[in-house]
Amino acid sequence: MRIILCGFGTVAQSLAKLLVSRSDDLYAKYGIMPRIVGAFDTHGGAVEQSGLDLNRLVEIKKKFGSIKHYDKSKKKWSGLEIIKNVDADVLIETTASNYHDAEPGMSHIITAMKRGMHVISVNKGPLAIAFPSLMELATYNQVQFRFSGTVGGGTPILDYAKNSLQGEQIVSFAGILNGTTNYILTNMSHGMSFAQALKDAKSRGYVEADESLDLDGFDAAAKLVILANWIMGMKVTMPDINRTGIRKVTSEDVKKAAKKKMAIKLIASCDKELVVAPKEIPIDDPLCVNGTLNAISFTSEHSGTQTIIGKGAGGTETASAILRDLLDIRKEILRD
Amino acid sequence: MRIILCGFGTVAQSLAKLLVSRSDDLYAKYGIMPRIVGAFDTHGGAVEQSGLDLNRLVEIKKKFGSIKHYDKSKKKWSGLEIIKNVDADVLIETTASNYHDAEPGMSHIITAMKRGMHVISVNKGPLAIAFPSLMELATYNQVQFRFSGTVGGGTPILDYAKNSLQGEQIVSFAGILNGTTNYILTNMSHGMSFAQALKDAKSRGYVEADESLDLDGFDAAAKLVILANWIMGMKVTMPDINRTGIRKVTSEDVKKAAKKKMAIKLIASCDKELVVAPKEIPIDDPLCVNGTLNAISFTSEHSGTQTIIGKGAGGTETASAILRDLLDIRKEILRD
Repeated sequence: MRIILCGFGTVAQSLAKLLVSRSDDLYAKYGIMPRIVGAFDTHGGAVEQSGLDLNRLVEIKKKFGSIKHYDKSKKKWSGLEIIKNVDADVLIETTASNYHDAEPGMSHIITAMKRGMHVISVNKGPLAIAFPSLMELATYNQVQFRFSGTVGGGTPILDYAKNSLQGEQIVSFAGILNGTTNYILTNMSHGMSFAQALKDAKSRGYVEADESLDLDGFDAAAKLVILANWIMGMKVTMPDINRTGIRKVTSEDVKKAAKKKMAIKLIASCDKELVVAPKEIPIDDPLCVNGTLNAISFTSEHSGTQTIIGKGAGGTETASAILRDLLDIRKEILRD
Repeated sequence: MRIILCGFGTVAQSLAKLLVSRSDDLYAKYGIMPRIVGAFDTHGGAVEQSGLDLNRLVEIKKKFGSIKHYDKSKKKWSGLEIIKNVDADVLIETTASNYHDAEPGMSHIITAMKRGMHVISVNKGPLAIAFPSLMELATYNQVQFRFSGTVGGGTPILDYAKNSLQGEQIVSFAGILNGTTNYILTNMSHGMSFAQALKDAKSRGYVEADESLDLDGFDAAAKLVILANWIMGMKVTMPDINRTGIRKVTSEDVKKAAKKKMAIKLIASCDKELVVAPKEIPIDDPLCVNGTLNAISFTSEHSGTQTIIGKGAGGTETASAILRDLLDIRKEILRD
């Protein structure tokens, strides 16, 4: 399987390491030999039809800050040039999410699909802004489109709802889908002020460069868009989400809730309406997880309410979600 | 799809109702029209190649205590006679679990597989006693064998671990797999004695006719056998489980644990050894659920620890698991 890798940050580097460490196992168990034939970051990229040396790629990135230095003798490639000119089976999109125009991820995905490549995205931006039309584009071009890593990191929330609950009608769901705000709210319940808790979260590297993405609920809303489309069959995008962040939650609110054995959490819910907002939930509800954990409760017609809890982020975890998507695409191709 | 239904207790009756209420939907969405061509309980059964009237079957059971009265004019069938003589595609085994010889379920399953029927079992007995050989028999006879409802009731724990985590290596797991003992231990943590809590659980119909199955950990151990075989690829049966029940847990133990912010739970775990025993776990661990809830935490190599929580029993819930198995078998048949 020939792969083009867009972006070379934490997740992509974890993926490169995972592919190296598991190459024997992947071939033996699943019969796949993934080859990264092109990869790029903001500054430029590298191409090698027989497969880039992944250890070297990680080293170069560490040493020079960009993988464009991978092979000095060769042509300098930009990201879109690679996607337009290099033949590959799968594009893996890992550049940063933004919710204005979702670029450059949006162009990467659209260009790849039009060229007949299957796409795996862990970038939420394009999905949040244009889920319904991207699915249409994938169907039209007869390619697979997968995005397990966008919700729950390594916790297979999307797959659980779609496949493990096959034949069931999910009637509603509610989740804690942003680890950063959950960490802040948990610390506030331990006595910190909002400002202190935010500072602590920043010092641990939990907060996005643009803190608004976490604090104002954009990240949770993007995940809600993805869940609503993929699981509930709704055709919605970001503007359809009624979104409130956690900036106005005070220590006073948190204390008041605690007295009632409740906790304030940023809840993304789908039940008639699509809402992201701070809400009080009982502390003994399975959904009420602490720290950076994510959790989601699905209520279905016949199987009651089921909750899945796991780490919602992390390089290796998200890379393992990409690997699952890759195996899934492989399975779908063989089935055709 | 022609189905033979073994046993007509709570789960089977819920399944009958579910098949009636969802028949249009099942045909429209999945193209299947399940027909129960034979069904029986302890006293005898009924056969109708064009499909038994499911509403009538439920009515007869309610009125006369056995479905053998379904059609007085016809031959009287015993269970094994039906399996041996009636042609069907799938056998659904719902008779009561026992861990001595697993009969009559064991004979039902073996006879059906030898006749080339796919088998769905929610009866844990045969699996607990003979999982490895039943899987071999299924493979040899080229039939599908499914048992989603045996672990977690309507919560798709087996499917999650096997499919949603595909490509992952699960290294260990630990779960609360018996709702009855969890209900008793929860009530003990609220101040009841073991005897009081047991009495309360009995009055709510939560305890098996043979209370030892719950209290001495047989039920949890049977589920552990199934998980160990299906998910970890181990070839084990009941005698391989190191099993301790909850009879010796005292109010004193529960109080002591609570002081350390811990709770005593009956934990079934797979980590080097296969053990069912009461253990202290932190009350803020996602695994620490209360009441009759079940929970299981899987730790995998790259995606960290993930917990699934849901109701572990219930007629409709377990019937919905059978329905998922039916759809799964249908999918596998089409793939061949």
